[in-house]
Amino acid sequence: MTTQLSVDLGARSYPIVVGTGLLSDVGRFAPFIAGRQVCIVTNETIAPLYLDTLKKTLAQYQVDECVLPDGEQHKTLETYARVMDHLMNNKHNRSTTLIALGGGVVGDITGFAAATYQRGVALIQVPTTLLALVDSSVGGKTAVNHPHGKNMIGAFYQPRLVLADLDTLRSLPEREYLAGIAEIVKYDVIRDAEFFGWLEANVTALQARDAAALDHAVITSCAIKAAVVAGDEREEGARAILNFGHTFGHAIETLTRYEYLHGESVAIGMVMAADLSVRIGMLGRADGRRIKALIAAFGLPVVPPGNVTADAMRASMGMDKKVIDGRLRLVLTSSIGEAVVTDRFDTTAFDATLTAHGKLCED
Amino acid sequence: MTTQLSVDLGARSYPIVVGTGLLSDVGRFAPFIAGRQVCIVTNETIAPLYLDTLKKTLAQYQVDECVLPDGEQHKTLETYARVMDHLMNNKHNRSTTLIALGGGVVGDITGFAAATYQRGVALIQVPTTLLALVDSSVGGKTAVNHPHGKNMIGAFYQPRLVLADLDTLRSLPEREYLAGIAEIVKYDVIRDAEFFGWLEANVTALQARDAAALDHAVITSCAIKAAVVAGDEREEGARAILNFGHTFGHAIETLTRYEYLHGESVAIGMVMAADLSVRIGMLGRADGRRIKALIAAFGLPVVPPGNVTADAMRASMGMDKKVIDGRLRLVLTSSIGEAVVTDRFDTTAFDATLTAHGKLCED
Repeated sequence: MTTQLSVDLGARSYPIVVGTGLLSDVGRFAPFIAGRQVCIVTNETIAPLYLDTLKKTLAQYQVDECVLPDGEQHKTLETYARVMDHLMNNKHNRSTTLIALGGGVVGDITGFAAATYQRGVALIQVPTTLLALVDSSVGGKTAVNHPHGKNMIGAFYQPRLVLADLDTLRSLPEREYLAGIAEIVKYDVIRDAEFFGWLEANVTALQARDAAALDHAVITSCAIKAAVVAGDEREEGARAILNFGHTFGHAIETLTRYEYLHGESVAIGMVMAADLSVRIGMLGRADGRRIKALIAAFGLPVVPPGNVTADAMRASMGMDKKVIDGRLRLVLTSSIGEAVVTDRFDTTAFDATLTAHGKLCED
Repeated sequence: MTTQLSVDLGARSYPIVVGTGLLSDVGRFAPFIAGRQVCIVTNETIAPLYLDTLKKTLAQYQVDECVLPDGEQHKTLETYARVMDHLMNNKHNRSTTLIALGGGVVGDITGFAAATYQRGVALIQVPTTLLALVDSSVGGKTAVNHPHGKNMIGAFYQPRLVLADLDTLRSLPEREYLAGIAEIVKYDVIRDAEFFGWLEANVTALQARDAAALDHAVITSCAIKAAVVAGDEREEGARAILNFGHTFGHAIETLTRYEYLHGESVAIGMVMAADLSVRIGMLGRADGRRIKALIAAFGLPVVPPGNVTADAMRASMGMDKKVIDGRLRLVLTSSIGEAVVTDRFDTTAFDATLTAHGKLCED
């Protein structure tokens, strides 16, 4: 069972292929490899699982690999510089192709490397985590973190192909799998009330990684992402809705020094965004509770960590990229399936959200 | 006397404004500044000359400056990281505007910083050297060097405005001024035989920095560059002709550890490219000599440094970006005003060019 979607961006359009057994099928890759050289960028966790398979699949090319340390704390300019060194030392030229084999960190670093090595080389995203599959591998956002903020250094750079082999999700640790579910929940809150209902009915199936349920969730999510990205490639407007839960979430990630996974932080961030939407009268309380309940049903966190203070959150969010000329822009929700980007919210309500903790969406 | 040209790139089109007194005219900048924040990136040599003037001009904005060390040896990822640190530490947001005030190194680093800070912020190029004015500030090529090769890390990223205040050229040291002349010579060899003749007749006027002659040379060069860039923004084809002399030249720059300025290296590289064109029968010997003679007439070097061996040149050129799948592509010339991009040349002739030294274009 293989499904193909398309991200429609004119000359930069590309397919998202979702299915099983794809890593072993050279025919899936060949049309998107630019020249003879290929560099697979992956990490120490993923390499033992899938690197040999992929190298064997690509045996007709001149393939080498760059294996990075695993973890968000390595998503830095230093690690990026290591990729550049690897490419230079192995004499990769302008017609090389970089393949990102891994999760969001590998995809983001490899994407930024592809965007900037010799001013841009071919890129293929092969996400091996649910989060990367439904989120970071699609849409062309690439970045590394700066010590003072997440994803502060990067580029918009589209891959030529996103190839998602669902077989790779079987090996995913439970915590990382659930972190991916958080982004799936996001898509229905911002865009698709019907899909939200489907998710509520399929919590158990998705927790069990039921193939059909997972396939449906992944394809529906990728289709929403592809449609939003096609409408606003460089996040000049509508694409901002994809950041639902992310401004609060990034602050939590930064302040916990990435102890909370991206998806976990976004899960909490979505509850906070829903809470603020309720407080300012934009969203009904019942819908707020429903959002929180679905996130909690998957076993995702819905309360900010106790040691993250409101002051620290406020300071951290002040440096967030979404601030335009000193005014904090947030993505809120007016009903399940509808997102609203706004910088018009009461600061008292905002402060109340920051201090509500276990009472988010409950008061 | 102010002239305005346009680089036509659809939504990314922008003006090149050439004139005098522009640094003091806020009206020239205002329409191209994105928000309230401005960061002027410059270097230790240029800052004492023009930074105060520009800051005073932009007093209505929230302006800070990032002053870099001067010199090509600082065009590195480390210096780029310093710019990122400065922007983060001073809380620049996505609607900030970076102004590159300086020569090619400042322009290239600042351009790459603007391309990648928060995935892209507004950029204005204010070139203060002749080389930057006629070459690097126009066209959107941004980059830093890697220890193993020049401009290996970068992005295509267009400025919103190129503002060239000819007053700043008065302070330019003779050697840097002449280095800029080399790029001007390049434009006529690749594109404009008539302009080549005009240059031959105006060597003395240009050496004396005669205002009218300089104005004509700058505007003609920028117009050629703008037209070539508009036809091929990302160097997928025709734009490659702008690299005439550059593949040889980059090797000389790298091998002399930037003791030879970019323009000086390109001057020698153009003579080598002309020599190879003659050797393979593409260019008449008389035209080869004419190219060499014009470059020499300006006092630019026309012989590779004695300590740069043919073997080192060959190795260095093997890593050049213009190599596609192992075949070296060079820009040669079939007549003055006509460039030819080709990987079809006799390696014996190529080797002869590398060892010809003082006999380039003469045999």
